[in-house]
Amino acid sequence: MLNDTIAAVSTALQDGAISIIRISGPESLILAERLFSRSVVDQPTHTVRYGYILDPISREAVDEVLLTVFRAPKTFTCEDVVEISCHGGRYITRRILALVLAEGARLADPGEFTRRAFLNGRIDLTQAEAVMDMIDADSSQQAQMAIQGIRGSIRRLIEPLNEALLNIIANIEVNIDYPEYEDAQQLTWESVLPQARRWLGQMDEILQRAESGRIMKKGVKTVILGKPNVGKSSLLNALLEEDKAIVTEIAGTTRDLVEGEIHLRNVTLHLIDTAGIHKTDDRVEQIGIERSMKALEEAELILIVLDASRPQDDEDRRLLDLTEGRNRIVVVNKKDLAPQCEDRSGTISICAAQNQIEPLINEINHRYEHHHAMLELPSLANERQIALARQARQSMAQAVSALEAGAELDLVTIDLQAAYMALKEIIGEASREDLLDALFSKFCLGK
Amino acid sequence: MLNDTIAAVSTALQDGAISIIRISGPESLILAERLFSRSVVDQPTHTVRYGYILDPISREAVDEVLLTVFRAPKTFTCEDVVEISCHGGRYITRRILALVLAEGARLADPGEFTRRAFLNGRIDLTQAEAVMDMIDADSSQQAQMAIQGIRGSIRRLIEPLNEALLNIIANIEVNIDYPEYEDAQQLTWESVLPQARRWLGQMDEILQRAESGRIMKKGVKTVILGKPNVGKSSLLNALLEEDKAIVTEIAGTTRDLVEGEIHLRNVTLHLIDTAGIHKTDDRVEQIGIERSMKALEEAELILIVLDASRPQDDEDRRLLDLTEGRNRIVVVNKKDLAPQCEDRSGTISICAAQNQIEPLINEINHRYEHHHAMLELPSLANERQIALARQARQSMAQAVSALEAGAELDLVTIDLQAAYMALKEIIGEASREDLLDALFSKFCLGK
Repeated sequence: MLNDTIAAVSTALQDGAISIIRISGPESLILAERLFSRSVVDQPTHTVRYGYILDPISREAVDEVLLTVFRAPKTFTCEDVVEISCHGGRYITRRILALVLAEGARLADPGEFTRRAFLNGRIDLTQAEAVMDMIDADSSQQAQMAIQGIRGSIRRLIEPLNEALLNIIANIEVNIDYPEYEDAQQLTWESVLPQARRWLGQMDEILQRAESGRIMKKGVKTVILGKPNVGKSSLLNALLEEDKAIVTEIAGTTRDLVEGEIHLRNVTLHLIDTAGIHKTDDRVEQIGIERSMKALEEAELILIVLDASRPQDDEDRRLLDLTEGRNRIVVVNKKDLAPQCEDRSGTISICAAQNQIEPLINEINHRYEHHHAMLELPSLANERQIALARQARQSMAQAVSALEAGAELDLVTIDLQAAYMALKEIIGEASREDLLDALFSKFCLGK
Repeated sequence: MLNDTIAAVSTALQDGAISIIRISGPESLILAERLFSRSVVDQPTHTVRYGYILDPISREAVDEVLLTVFRAPKTFTCEDVVEISCHGGRYITRRILALVLAEGARLADPGEFTRRAFLNGRIDLTQAEAVMDMIDADSSQQAQMAIQGIRGSIRRLIEPLNEALLNIIANIEVNIDYPEYEDAQQLTWESVLPQARRWLGQMDEILQRAESGRIMKKGVKTVILGKPNVGKSSLLNALLEEDKAIVTEIAGTTRDLVEGEIHLRNVTLHLIDTAGIHKTDDRVEQIGIERSMKALEEAELILIVLDASRPQDDEDRRLLDLTEGRNRIVVVNKKDLAPQCEDRSGTISICAAQNQIEPLINEINHRYEHHHAMLELPSLANERQIALARQARQSMAQAVSALEAGAELDLVTIDLQAAYMALKEIIGEASREDLLDALFSKFCLGK
């Protein structure tokens, strides 16, 4: 599989000044030699030559290009790589790719160059994922997380946990292999349990940080909730700084869910303005309210809007009860209509219609400051990594329980090895072979 | 102006695996040095280094990149050039460009790198235009014309004409400068006129070839014309191999102009199906017919459709008269309904409803074979070049008339110099200074 030579257009397939066609594999240089007006096989690594791509049959010039040679192993894929930088028109780019394929290269699958970099051991799986994250990044936070990942931050995060785990396993194995110590179980319990608990603590911290990272990356699902005509749509518009939702003085104006996204200093919110929740006979409004309730279930932040100019009523209280214990902010709107009112405690007063929402924005930024600060630290980057870390954590927690309950050491070892495998899978090195190698090399008992 | 350093993203600004940020100008290397994790100023020309783009303030890594150095003068712009090949996400690409601009580069105008290549004398104006043509090319014919242009085919086409012109001018100047020859006028007439006529012949050939090139590049505006219900829309659909126009047995079905494009072996047609032309009271149909007449005026090829199953009538004859002398093909449709009919001479019989249109396609290909064959030869590439060539031709024709009429040589010289300037303008070298330089260097008379 890795013996073939692959090729693809590595730049976006839109008209631009330059396109890059990348070729990787053992035949790269010989293949390019047949298409280039100058010699490729004697071109030194990491150098660029100017010349023409020639039609291999007619020997006529097809395009004027720069051709770069990267010789294995110091290349992106660890294989011989040739990059052809041609004029960036779609037609000419495809034409040159077609010539490369006709000479025997195979069209690369998506991500296949990066995959080869991984399979050939230049990068681990988390670095490969970070490459994809960098391309997908659309904020400085995401780009920052991606470059850390590319530089191996996740491997460095996982490695100490892996080593601690190996230590624990080694300690237990000693007791299994030398059962002549009668109090092996006791010894293990004493030496291993504190390590295991410390390990759990470290893992919890990593998982918390990953949660912060996830929030920073995906943004926070935020629902604006309130009974009709308290100014929910005005608040949405004020937050979005545009007139997205239709605002009237008529209660029940909003029936569809109106959505929008804002980037605050510390967090991105995916805002959903909902239909005012109350009892109604209007069928369309009822459907809107059902959708609001569904959005509420999934919400990660809830903005409850009350009306300063009207006393709290049963409907307000019902919404407050409904969201008790959730991550919510109680916002008192229309404070301009009730200037004599004192701020109710635990609430934020605003006037959405006049865009006076600064206190609310400050509160939201404050609430996510901690998550934002976490960004400075390396973190797991995606659901796959988080799921495996959780899996490792769970296995370790089971091992701890088993140890505490005085279970057979062999059984405990199974859990610990499962934890180890999960961690190894994060960086793409999940083979039993490898686990054994590591054990033997570190803890060789002279057998 | 050329002392500043410019930068731009040279790949298409869509997500891709790789983006290229190109920097050109005297500060390129120093500027890149401040952003790169390795030394740039000592990096040899035409080499690539792997490293990181660093935020110049925090010194934190922004992206993992390949950085290529091209040292003046053997570069695209003849200036120092640095290319940064970064991850191809839109965010990260813009971020790195922003860093480059913050370090003092100016955002390049569209085409400015190519313009510098021209201003610095690496390529002429026709080559610069060919670079743009290559990017815009969307057929092998266009790409072939573009690569010829990039390789200087147009300069080579123009240069012999220029030299012949300089010879003619020199001959005349000799007679102006040495008026002691009494029969200068006569001498000039005899020596110059044959040269000038040969020159006109060559220019006519170039202009004809340019017309072929223009047709091959832009395609041919083709109008399908006929009275109602002869099967114009069926023919369009058969040509396009899709059901684009609505076809019914009701006369007058088509009222809008329905358009489409087909690539035949020798030519591309821009097809317009028109409303059937006849007298009608239907206001919408009338507007449609007006538009048909307008399309007819602009048509470069006209397909007149007759109905084999009905005798020719006045409306048919009116259309045939209307298009007399134009580039037209008379198509007799529905031959299946009149199998006993013999083919009318000078017409092509088809059955559009059954997709039997092969004879028509053959005729069209045959008609453009000559133009297509012209593609093998170098040709002027665009309207600018053609307009200047026409201008040069016109000046020369005036000069010939003037010589024939025995005009003063000074007056003739003005025409010839105008022709020379127009030709020089084609390749972007239109300065009076230059004309004089050329004259003096070639024909220095020892003064």
